[in-house]
Order: sequence, then structure tokens, then C-alpha cells
Amino acid sequence: MAPKSVQTAPDATGDPKHAVRATRSAGRQMRSRLLDGASRLFREQGPAGTSISDIAAAADAFPSQITYYFHTKEALFVEAACRDMLYVARAAEQAALSAHTPREYTRALVASVTATDSVAFFAEALTLTRRRQDLAPLVERTIERLHGEGLRAYAGQIERHGWNTLRDPDATSRRFWAVAIGVMVEGYATGRSPDELCAEMLRVLGEQATTKPAGDSARLRLVGERDPSVSNSPQGETSS
Amino acid sequence: MAPKSVQTAPDATGDPKHAVRATRSAGRQMRSRLLDGASRLFREQGPAGTSISDIAAAADAFPSQITYYFHTKEALFVEAACRDMLYVARAAEQAALSAHTPREYTRALVASVTATDSVAFFAEALTLTRRRQDLAPLVERTIERLHGEGLRAYAGQIERHGWNTLRDPDATSRRFWAVAIGVMVEGYATGRSPDELCAEMLRVLGEQATTKPAGDSARLRLVGERDPSVSNSPQGETSS
Repeated sequence: MAPKSVQTAPDATGDPKHAVRATRSAGRQMRSRLLDGASRLFREQGPAGTSISDIAAAADAFPSQITYYFHTKEALFVEAACRDMLYVARAAEQAALSAHTPREYTRALVASVTATDSVAFFAEALTLTRRRQDLAPLVERTIERLHGEGLRAYAGQIERHGWNTLRDPDATSRRFWAVAIGVMVEGYATGRSPDELCAEMLRVLGEQATTKPAGDSARLRLVGERDPSVSNSPQGETSS
Repeated sequence: MAPKSVQTAPDATGDPKHAVRATRSAGRQMRSRLLDGASRLFREQGPAGTSISDIAAAADAFPSQITYYFHTKEALFVEAACRDMLYVARAAEQAALSAHTPREYTRALVASVTATDSVAFFAEALTLTRRRQDLAPLVERTIERLHGEGLRAYAGQIERHGWNTLRDPDATSRRFWAVAIGVMVEGYATGRSPDELCAEMLRVLGEQATTKPAGDSARLRLVGERDPSVSNSPQGETSS
């Protein structure tokens, strides 16, 4: 995935702000390059097995540039993991866009999320943050965005296709990510393959929505906390 | 929770095996004392902040006894976390035994699991094990027992009360623990209180079972992977 924060430097236009913009852009590029190098090394070797000078070498930078941009190795670890988690979430939503049924949608999301170790990387950052509460605000913002974007994407799909969600979309999105973290943390500890992780996550997650029942209007039906088997049965697929 | 592995030394009966048994029992007691001390320190300070000599001092033992019984600090960390995870699972099942409805049952389980940091401790051990695959077999056995005992306890409750499980009991138990790990890892990173963790876990988990529909026979109905709103509708509560 291409880092989104990299922007090409604006052309020289004689604008006096050009130098400032060029410096800012170079700073962004360096930050992004450091995050890329860090992400690769941290995933392979973990935080304990990776030094600041390893990362500097991987990004063709000086160790002092890492401390300038990120202060500590732990802060860099958490920022790289948070960035990658938001990337994988967006990639999963992209991969699921063409799904025609709720089952295809869930399957595409899960396959995408279990294909990389980004969720395990993020879970490792969460674990580290427990002991480093100074890093909690970044994690908090990432989780908020994750749930906010997940909710928006899910609610959009539900509405676009006229599916029935089995629970309120916010709880559905939160469950998706909680299950992803739980399954990945367990699976990486026991050395599971991506295929096994995908199957386990699908199994644990269960159905998220059903296709629109015949004859129902186009409105979004939210089942919320109630048991789907007892709610509004005339509207269920059983009536079709 | 009293450590189960501690047994009182058998009385001296003149049996020549007595000395062997006494030594074995003293060994078990020392092991258990080291695990207790390690568990307390690791939960408070994490693995990086805890040294073998700290643990030895807390357990009134020598550092060499730790390396004798556990080899490394990491192995002790993982063993203490696995032991505590099985304890918290059993304590949760005990706390939920007196529940009269599926909702009370889930609530008692979740309240018990979110009252301590045992799940977060276990998740930290899982994260560590990813980088230390020599410790994976113990983690694997613990997860198997967790799911096996969870399945047995849940299926027992379902059958005893004649509840309808909304999904197959094995998937229900696996979802419970995946959600617990996901919610706790997230919640501990962002400094959530036990009450907030409990509310979030209940929300994410959703309903696990419903009370027996009137007029249905006493058999256990397994919905499995199918959408509960479309399966066997005449047997659902909608028919009552």
C-alpha cells in the first residue's frame, strides 16, 4: 500500500511560501519513509529485536532523524502500527465493495484482514501502550477512526444493497474489530496460517446481515440488541 | 484464587516412597509460589519491568530456583498468564452457575472476566509467544482447554435450562474468548475501567441464547452457522 501522507513537492512558482512548503513536504516524505522502514522491521523482528539504528539504516536516514520525528522507538512502533491498521481497514473495505451478498461482503473483509499481519502488529502496539499511557491518545484516535470508518462503510453497504443488519451497525463494526484482534492474537501465538486465520475468524464472527426480504420496503431495519429470531418475523426471509 | 497445584504433603507412613512424594510436593509448592509472585509483579510492571531477582524476592526464593523450574523469565511469564487465564475462566463459570436466564448468564460471565486483568495478562503472553514459538505448545494447550471447558460449561447450561443457543456452542465459546481478548487489549491500551470494559464487552458480544420457546420440546436446538432469523421459524419464540 502506498503511504498516503507522501505528497509530491509543489512546483517552484516564485511564491515565497514555496520554500516552507518544500521543507514541509520533505519532512512528510522522510516521516513516511521512516514509518515504512520501521513497519517492515517491527513486523519481522518485534520491538525488542529492532533498534533505532536498524530502522535508520533501512530508511536510509540518521538515527537522530528518528528521535527528531518520533522521540522514542516505542512511539514510532505505535505510530507505524496505527497507520498500518487504518490502511488495512480501508483496503478491506475496498476489497469488499464489489460484494453482492452479506456473506460475500463479510468473506471479502475477513480475507483481506487476515491476509497480512497488520492486526497482529496493531494488537502488539495496544499491548505496549498499556504500559506506556503517554502513547494512549494516538491509539485512542486510531480506534475511534477505525470504528467510525467501519460503521460508515458498513451502514453504507447495508443501505446501498437494502440488506438487513442483524445488530446495530456500530456494534457490528466493533464486534468485527474485537473479533479480528482476538482471533489474530491467538492465531499468531500458535503459528496459524492466513487461511486458518480466515476460516477461524469467519466462524467466530458469524452472520452480520441477511439479504433484503422480498416485499419489504427499502428502509434500513436495525435489529439492535434484540434477538433476531424473535423480531419482526413477518419481515424475515421466512416470509418469502 | 487458591492455586490448585499445591497439595498437602502426605503423612509419614513408613512407606519408602514417602520421601519422593514429599520432595515432589515441596517442588509443587515452590513452583506455585513462584507463579503467584511472578503473576503479581508481571501484571503490575509487565515483563520488561520485572526481573528474575524481583520475582525471587517476592516469592522468598533464589533466582536459581526460577531458572531451575522455568528456565527463562519469558517461559515463567507465559506459564503464569496461562494458569491465571484458566482460573479466571473457571471463576467466571462458577459466578454464572446461578443465572436463571441467558442474559443473566452472559452478564455474570462478562462481569467476572472484566473484573480482573487476567485476560489482558494472557493477551500479553500471546503477543510474546508470537516471537517465542518455543513457548507455543503451552499456549496451544491452554487455548484448547479454554475452548473445551467453555464449550462444556456453555452446553451444560443450555441443556440444564432448556435454552436455545443462537449459534453452535463451540462457536459461541470461541466468540466469547475472542471478543474478551479483543475488548480487553483495546480497553487496557486506552485505560478503560472494569465497568466500561464490562459494558463494552456485553455490547460487542450480543445475545448468546434465548429462553426456551413455549410449547417446544426439551431438546437442544443448534442453530449453527445459519442465520437464526431464517431457521426453523415455527419453533422460534415468534410461534408462542
